[in-house]
Parts: sequence; structure tokens; C-alpha cells
Amino acid sequence: MAKVAIMGFGTVGSGVYEIIKDNASRVAENAGEALETKYILDIRDFDDHPDKHLFTKDVNDIINDSEVSIVAEVMGGLHPAYEFTKSMLMAGKSVVTSNKELVATYGTELLGIAEEKNVNYLFEASVGGGIPVLRPLSRCLAANNITRIAGILNGTTNYILYEMFTNNKSFNDALADAQANGYAERNPAADIEGHDACRKIAILASLASGVEVDAERISTEGIVDITLDDVKCAEAAGGVIKLIGYADIADGKVYSHVAPMFIKNDNMLSGINGVFNGILITGDAVGDVMFYGAGAGKLPTASAVVADMVDSAIHSSRRKLIGWKKPETDIMDDGAEKSFRYLIRCKNTEQEIMALTNTGIVYNENGTVAFTTEAMTAKECTTLSDKLGKVESAIRILD
Amino acid sequence: MAKVAIMGFGTVGSGVYEIIKDNASRVAENAGEALETKYILDIRDFDDHPDKHLFTKDVNDIINDSEVSIVAEVMGGLHPAYEFTKSMLMAGKSVVTSNKELVATYGTELLGIAEEKNVNYLFEASVGGGIPVLRPLSRCLAANNITRIAGILNGTTNYILYEMFTNNKSFNDALADAQANGYAERNPAADIEGHDACRKIAILASLASGVEVDAERISTEGIVDITLDDVKCAEAAGGVIKLIGYADIADGKVYSHVAPMFIKNDNMLSGINGVFNGILITGDAVGDVMFYGAGAGKLPTASAVVADMVDSAIHSSRRKLIGWKKPETDIMDDGAEKSFRYLIRCKNTEQEIMALTNTGIVYNENGTVAFTTEAMTAKECTTLSDKLGKVESAIRILD
Repeated sequence: MAKVAIMGFGTVGSGVYEIIKDNASRVAENAGEALETKYILDIRDFDDHPDKHLFTKDVNDIINDSEVSIVAEVMGGLHPAYEFTKSMLMAGKSVVTSNKELVATYGTELLGIAEEKNVNYLFEASVGGGIPVLRPLSRCLAANNITRIAGILNGTTNYILYEMFTNNKSFNDALADAQANGYAERNPAADIEGHDACRKIAILASLASGVEVDAERISTEGIVDITLDDVKCAEAAGGVIKLIGYADIADGKVYSHVAPMFIKNDNMLSGINGVFNGILITGDAVGDVMFYGAGAGKLPTASAVVADMVDSAIHSSRRKLIGWKKPETDIMDDGAEKSFRYLIRCKNTEQEIMALTNTGIVYNENGTVAFTTEAMTAKECTTLSDKLGKVESAIRILD
Repeated sequence: MAKVAIMGFGTVGSGVYEIIKDNASRVAENAGEALETKYILDIRDFDDHPDKHLFTKDVNDIINDSEVSIVAEVMGGLHPAYEFTKSMLMAGKSVVTSNKELVATYGTELLGIAEEKNVNYLFEASVGGGIPVLRPLSRCLAANNITRIAGILNGTTNYILYEMFTNNKSFNDALADAQANGYAERNPAADIEGHDACRKIAILASLASGVEVDAERISTEGIVDITLDDVKCAEAAGGVIKLIGYADIADGKVYSHVAPMFIKNDNMLSGINGVFNGILITGDAVGDVMFYGAGAGKLPTASAVVADMVDSAIHSSRRKLIGWKKPETDIMDDGAEKSFRYLIRCKNTEQEIMALTNTGIVYNENGTVAFTTEAMTAKECTTLSDKLGKVESAIRILD
């Protein structure tokens, strides 16, 4: 019997509590022992809860209870999640989390403490909700050098773009719709400006490369500038636009960005609809593999948290080798030399475009023209756009 | 340093040898120690091979060498793979394999011996080639009761069906094409009659349920009767036909079949093209997750074999909890009570069909009519077909 604690009784926390209770036999079978919730930490009152005796407002109750060996941190936010996690690890308890902000910001330090204390710090739920992706990335693909990751990592923005493409809604209407359906926060900045996806690609790229990829240094663009004109042009070019967390790893360097990208309809990522997530990983031996599922939601996310608790119970005596280190040299590639093809939308004439580039026009209606370029650097794309003078958008193509 | 042996130097075996050599640093980093190939077992001569000193024709060289702790069995076939694997496990060596026939047939016994000897018997490469699916199924989804598995598990048949749908080739032409491209054996029976997919769904269902699912008792149908008329009707109904390994688990019972199924275009499995595989797994907490990638091929499959070798090295002191037991009671559900919707193709008139069922006609050309039914048992479908008298095919729908 492993005694566990849950820090934070919000959506995910209550899901963790329910799964431990409702799926007890499956969990025990897989963990090799039963899990029992001994504490739930939350500053709010839950006097009507059937298990109200489990609730505490004092984190020290958990820290000082040597019987508790595994703690789920599902509070979200940086503080006090950071301080609480650190205290638990220092006290020799394994911690599992769904908190991508914390992992992306303090992951390297917390992984170091976990290693020192010979306990686990696991965070499968921080990327892709319930989709198994971090463990497959680090374990099942252990024989591969990972060369590229391209993921639809944020369900809110995928829902908005899907509504724009499928139901011809404007960005603002699709956002309002997402908010009405509970898929977007009242303050949606973290999603629509790409910050949430940025934290997740930072975690994926760190795991894939084995060294910390600094989220602050990932060029991050959201979807707020995507218009129905872009939608029309993308459809004419035989694809869709998705917000992509992108990383490539070559010669010990990592290049990463978050941006809307054009994806042809024959790429599996183009079929990820609504709030779903999909992560395409390329290894030098395995080629492309993709992981798909619900990227958020109470029970999907909670099921990944509980799976990490199960893994912590199994590995109580020997910690999991999953994580990354601080790099010894600067491993971030600023992307100045990276080339992408672009889908460009402009108000130029076909003749003006043909005079500067010989690639194909895909759309020409009511004075709006779209074409795809050869692969070029961002600087070359800016030069081309300046020459044309009437470019309205330039979207990188995921090839 | 872990010393390893490779049994069988065919396509996968030579891939295993190459990955251990070429990706040595990534492998060592993940395993916590380097892997070194000490023996390669094959009855053929490889006198020109640069590492010819590693080759042996005598399995006892490996069995009797206590330095060898991990063995990859990539010979294929039942014998002598079974005897060799048993000897290795008895000698206290971990064995990893890509041999689905062996795992589906003797897996329960070999897992029992591995448990007794406290070594690993791992077989990620036996299903889905390089796609991580068995480990995610048993570990990442450890908090879920798995309720359903539906997988495109055989690349050869998926290629044939894809060619029939995309390029309007007949079954025979598509098969000849697959053979010419090296995607199908000269004797393609194991693929096109569904036996290969049957072994794989037996392994998946055994892992998901925790008890042995007998491949011999899985109703298995291939794709040899699928015609271009079926293709036309499926397209008219808004979907495609895929060979599906199917299992559902409810109340401790497992129902499983392998059969061509109709899949609507909005289901992720419909987008799995060419020789690729995709496995859709449903858990009670996580909902649907899908795993996608190359289901065969030298390096993809070998990368899964080497990942299992890495895992064996990590877990040399404590074996992985992955496998299943003999069931105490009969857990196989014969499916008599299972209901599916059907896509039916017949030569009846719309009037004759409407007199017997009120569901929608999706196709009516040149005397061929297709319609989809409500959910019904196989027996009810037979009764309906008998009444109509002119039914040419009845394909289950994956809902």
C-alpha cells in the first residue's frame, strides 16, 4: 500500500482522486500495490465532501508525514507550486505533475533535486494531457536520435482554427464559441498567443535532446492574425493551418518555434480536429510516429497523472531515467540559417509575383493572390515580401 | 557495459546490429551503460562481414556465456525460436523479440519462465513495428480500464486497400503491385487472410486485459473478397474500408475479431495510408488515443527491438511488469450478442430494402444498391441478408 497526497483539488485534482478510487483494482494491478489518498491539500473548504477528513490547508501535514511517498502536484501556476514541489522532493517524496508552466520554468532544478534525493519527478500530463508521449519519447524511442518534433499542443487554438476552416467562422467568432463551450479561458492570451504551446515544445525538445531548452528563447507567435483570407488560400493550396510547436535537433543544436504553419492534407497532423492534440516525432531509425488524443480535460489529464503515480510506486527503489540537464554550452540555434517554404498571401498581380519568383500561384480572387515559395530563410522571405510590397501574410509550410 | 547477442541476421537482425553500432551514444545514454554485440547467431555464412568474428552457428555459445545478459530473438517462425528463447530465459538472460507468431503462440509460457527467472521478456517490436504501443498501453495507460482496441495492424493489406481506394486498382492488381514493391510476400496468405493481424490483436488484447487471449479463437477474415464495388459503396457512404484487428473488453470478457470494416472519414484510422499502421485505444478515463507510424521495415522494427534491449539493461535488477497470465475461467466472448452496424451491398431494389429496414440508401447505380443498417448481431444480419436474397457483401461499421 502506497500512501499518496494530492496538492490542489481543482479539475485535474478531483479527477486524480476519482481515478485512484474508481479504478483502484486496475491501478493496484499495475503498480504492484494499492494506492491510497491520505491527504488533499487545498485552501478552500470542502466540508460537504464525503472524504472531508482527507482535506488539509497546511502543506506541512504532508511534508512531515513519512508515510506519504508520492505526491501529485496539480495546483497549476508557479507559486507556491514550485516551493511545495521542492519541499516534497527534499523530504524524499516522489512528485508527479500536470503543471507545464512549472516544468518548463523550474524543471531542470527540480529534476536535479529529484536525482540527488533518489526520487522521481514525472510530468507526463504536462504535455498532451492524457496522450502518452513523454515516456514513449524517452523510453520507446531510446534507440533513435530524435531529429524533429512537430506538434499540435494546444486544444483551444486547434478548436478555433478548426472552426475557421470547417464552419467559416472569423477568428473572433470562433474564439467566442470556444469560450462559450468552455474550451477557452475568459482571458485566452496564454493559448492564442502561443505561450502554452511554447512551454510544451520546450519540455518535448528538452527531453528529446537531453539538455534544457529555454522556453523564453523560443520564437513564439500565436494565431490572432490568421484571417478567413488565410483560410481560403490554405484550402486552395490543399491543406490547413495549425498552430505548431516545432523543434529540430541537429549536430547538438536545437532550433524551436511556435507558429501557425501550413500543413498539406496528406500529413497526419492535418486531420487532428477540434480540441484534440497530435504530436509527430521523427527518429533517425523509426521515421515518423504520431501520438493522438485528448490534450486536456479532467479525466484524460488525471489518468496521465495517476499513471505517473503508478510508475513512481513501481520505481520506488530505483528512479526513472527521464529528464534533462543544463547544457554545458549554448545549444539554442536562433534559426537564422533555417529554411522553410512559405505560403504567401498578397495584393500583388501574378505578373509582379512571377517577376520575383517562379513558384506556383494557388489562389487568385478579388485581388488577393496566394503562392508557395521555395525553401528560404526568414530573412530571405522578408526581402521577398519587401520587394513585393503588398504582402499580407507569410506562413511557414511544414514539409 | 552490457554484452548482447542477436539471434537471426535477416532484415531486422542486421538492423539491430546497425543501430547498436551507429546510435551507440544515444543508446548508452538511455540505458545507463553501453551495449556491445558479442554474438550473432545465424546458420548462414557471413565470411565477408567486417565483424565476422561475432558470428556463430552454435546457440550453445550464447547459452553458456554468462557474460551475455540480453538476447534479441529476431529469427521469426516458431521453431527453433521457441526452443532458443526458452533456453536463454532458463539461463537467466533477458530476451527481446519482434516475433509476433512466437509471442501470440507461446507468450504465456515464456512470460511465466521470465517471471520465474526474474528476467525480462519484452516484445514491443511484435506489434506495430517501430510504433511505441505495447509499453504505452501497459504503462502510460496504467490508470485506465481499456475498453476497446481497433487497429490497422498489417501494412501489406493496408497498402492493397489504399491502392484500391486511391488508384481504383482491383484487389489482384493491388496485390501484384504490393509484391513488386516488396510490401507483400510471394506467398501473401498470412497477410491477406488476416492471420498476421490476428496474432497482433491477440497480443494487444492479452496485454490490455491481463489474461491470455487465444489467437486461435479470434474470428479472422481477410480482405480477399473486397471488390471495387465495395470501394464505390464505401466512398458513397463517406468512408473507407480497412482491415481492423478489433477487441473489446467488458465485465472481464474479451471479444475480438479481425475483419474488413467500414470507417467514416472523420475517424483518425481512415487517414492511415499506404503501408502505415495505426492503433486506436480507448480507455475509460483517457478516451481515445491513437498511435501511428511505420508498422514494419528494417530500421523501424529494429529500433523497437533495441529500445527493449535498453529497457532490459535498465531493469536488469528488477524486471518490467509487462505481460499476462493464463485466465482462471474462459474469458473469450464468442460475439453472438455483439451488435455492429453494417454497410450492405446488394442487387435488391430500393423498395425491397425499404420494406425490410428503414435505414439510408447510400448508393444506387447499375443495379447495385448499398445501405447502412442499425446496429444488429451477426445472426440478425444473416437473417436480413437471407430475406433480401441478393446480398453481395455485408461489412461491419466501426463506430
